[in-house]
Amino acid sequence: MKTIKIGLLGMGNIGTGTYKTLEMNRNEIEATLDRKVEIVKILEKDTERDRGVTVPKEKFTQDPDEIFNDPDIDIVIELLGGIEPATTFMLTAMKKGKHVVTANKAAIAANYHQLMDTAKENHIAFKFEASVGGGIPILGTLLGPLRANKFQEVMGILNGTTNYILHMMTKEGMDYDVALKDAQAQGFAEADPTADVEGIDAANKLTILMALMFDKYVAPEDIPTTGITGITSEKIEEARSNKCKIKLIAHAWKDDAGEIKYEVRPMYISETHPLANINKEFNAVFVKGNAVDDVMFYGKGAGPLPTGSAVLGDVIDIAKTVLR
Amino acid sequence: MKTIKIGLLGMGNIGTGTYKTLEMNRNEIEATLDRKVEIVKILEKDTERDRGVTVPKEKFTQDPDEIFNDPDIDIVIELLGGIEPATTFMLTAMKKGKHVVTANKAAIAANYHQLMDTAKENHIAFKFEASVGGGIPILGTLLGPLRANKFQEVMGILNGTTNYILHMMTKEGMDYDVALKDAQAQGFAEADPTADVEGIDAANKLTILMALMFDKYVAPEDIPTTGITGITSEKIEEARSNKCKIKLIAHAWKDDAGEIKYEVRPMYISETHPLANINKEFNAVFVKGNAVDDVMFYGKGAGPLPTGSAVLGDVIDIAKTVLR
Repeated sequence: MKTIKIGLLGMGNIGTGTYKTLEMNRNEIEATLDRKVEIVKILEKDTERDRGVTVPKEKFTQDPDEIFNDPDIDIVIELLGGIEPATTFMLTAMKKGKHVVTANKAAIAANYHQLMDTAKENHIAFKFEASVGGGIPILGTLLGPLRANKFQEVMGILNGTTNYILHMMTKEGMDYDVALKDAQAQGFAEADPTADVEGIDAANKLTILMALMFDKYVAPEDIPTTGITGITSEKIEEARSNKCKIKLIAHAWKDDAGEIKYEVRPMYISETHPLANINKEFNAVFVKGNAVDDVMFYGKGAGPLPTGSAVLGDVIDIAKTVLR
Repeated sequence: MKTIKIGLLGMGNIGTGTYKTLEMNRNEIEATLDRKVEIVKILEKDTERDRGVTVPKEKFTQDPDEIFNDPDIDIVIELLGGIEPATTFMLTAMKKGKHVVTANKAAIAANYHQLMDTAKENHIAFKFEASVGGGIPILGTLLGPLRANKFQEVMGILNGTTNYILHMMTKEGMDYDVALKDAQAQGFAEADPTADVEGIDAANKLTILMALMFDKYVAPEDIPTTGITGITSEKIEEARSNKCKIKLIAHAWKDDAGEIKYEVRPMYISETHPLANINKEFNAVFVKGNAVDDVMFYGKGAGPLPTGSAVLGDVIDIAKTVLR
């Protein structure tokens, strides 16, 4: 039985979740593929941290070229986060003929065309299901089972941090500052929450969705974006008196003239709309296609194992369709 | 540019929806595939009916062998419904080397192993996304982006007729008989609603879900099944007083000993559960995986265009992965 060999760039929370998911479900995954799957090298400085999973020390390297230049490695999984050096590493891996899987929305949103073009030129697969909606299988669905549609609209709750904060303000009556501290204490918000609360993370994800759904690239900084820092308890109450909830929505749609419009902003969502009941750190994506009409996908938009599920789903797809 | 040629068995509502979806979105589908796609022959007696779409008369045939024996036909789409002659037709098509796409839950649930084995023996693709959840891309998601999971549970609102009836009883205070008549008037229930209201249709779909998620085949007649004919306005009220809604749920799960349990029955669903807000004829499927945790998919579980979206999604997948 051939072994599919993987080089992993970065073993923080998501890298660890991916490694754990593979260990948990190795038997089923390998049976599905009729191949063994092994993460053979890991680019990571911190070799000592207790990750709750045993990683043989010899897998760690601090030299990315050891991964790029290893002719046995089929797939590179990039989970460093951030635009650089992640983008350069992905481009290098592609040029070396490695298939690339990533969860890195910032890098894809910033360098979409360069990454897609380089993947195409080098005839390698480039997949990034985990970059939008974490464990929610939205991208593969848009490109797969829903591919027979012309898409008209997408509305997404794409950021778990802000949804958690708005949920606690709505449900528990917390003020914004208290809810943010609670989110940080629960591990749903980072020490510097700017990218989340200002809507930047959601804008990155909307850039990716628009590119796939409408074949239109809009840089995240060109998406009109309003975060949730201006949401007060009074505004939450005002929404409630209108039978609505406030949600941070990443929204893109075709207008009547066929032009694509887009924005990220807190919106009133009617309590009867499916997006209104997406609580806590959950994400959801609502899509309208001209044949399927309304569909919605709901799940955990972050977290090590849900994101690991999406990363390994991409690995399985590459193994089944490209590496067979 | 090569043309992918399709033989269509049956041009009732779903067949017409599939034909229309292809006409609507032909340019995009063909651009995606870099192939032309054409439904070249249609097995259908009723050649006169106004379907709201122009079908050249010469495409119609009343002899299925004209489709099975046409060496130019790559894919057979079976949309006759019912167990026979649909099953025999699908088996014949497979033995003639045609890839098969169907929406026919009753035929798959009744003859799962025979159909899967015959497809495998003849090295053809057999796909049936539209058979569960209509337009909701649940099967492709379970077999694709979620494939890295061990599945623990599925809870589905898989029948639009019963969900519509329960919705009208809950929301509008209708009695069962009135709600059934309303569903029939709206086209959401058939003149003989037995298969829907007795839970048989939902059981067929649960058979398919269990086979794919747990690799366990349970014949639909072996699934303990209770329909909604015993649901009264009093029971709806009793649920409401417990902050619940009554939903017809197809449910399968792994118990603590790892054994698969299954049932179809009306259940109390807490008003805060995502499945509680699936209204009218919509369907939803809630899945728990050991990595992704809870995910839910929501959309139109029936109707010509949503079902056509799923059927053509399968066609596109076959064209991209098998016919390339």
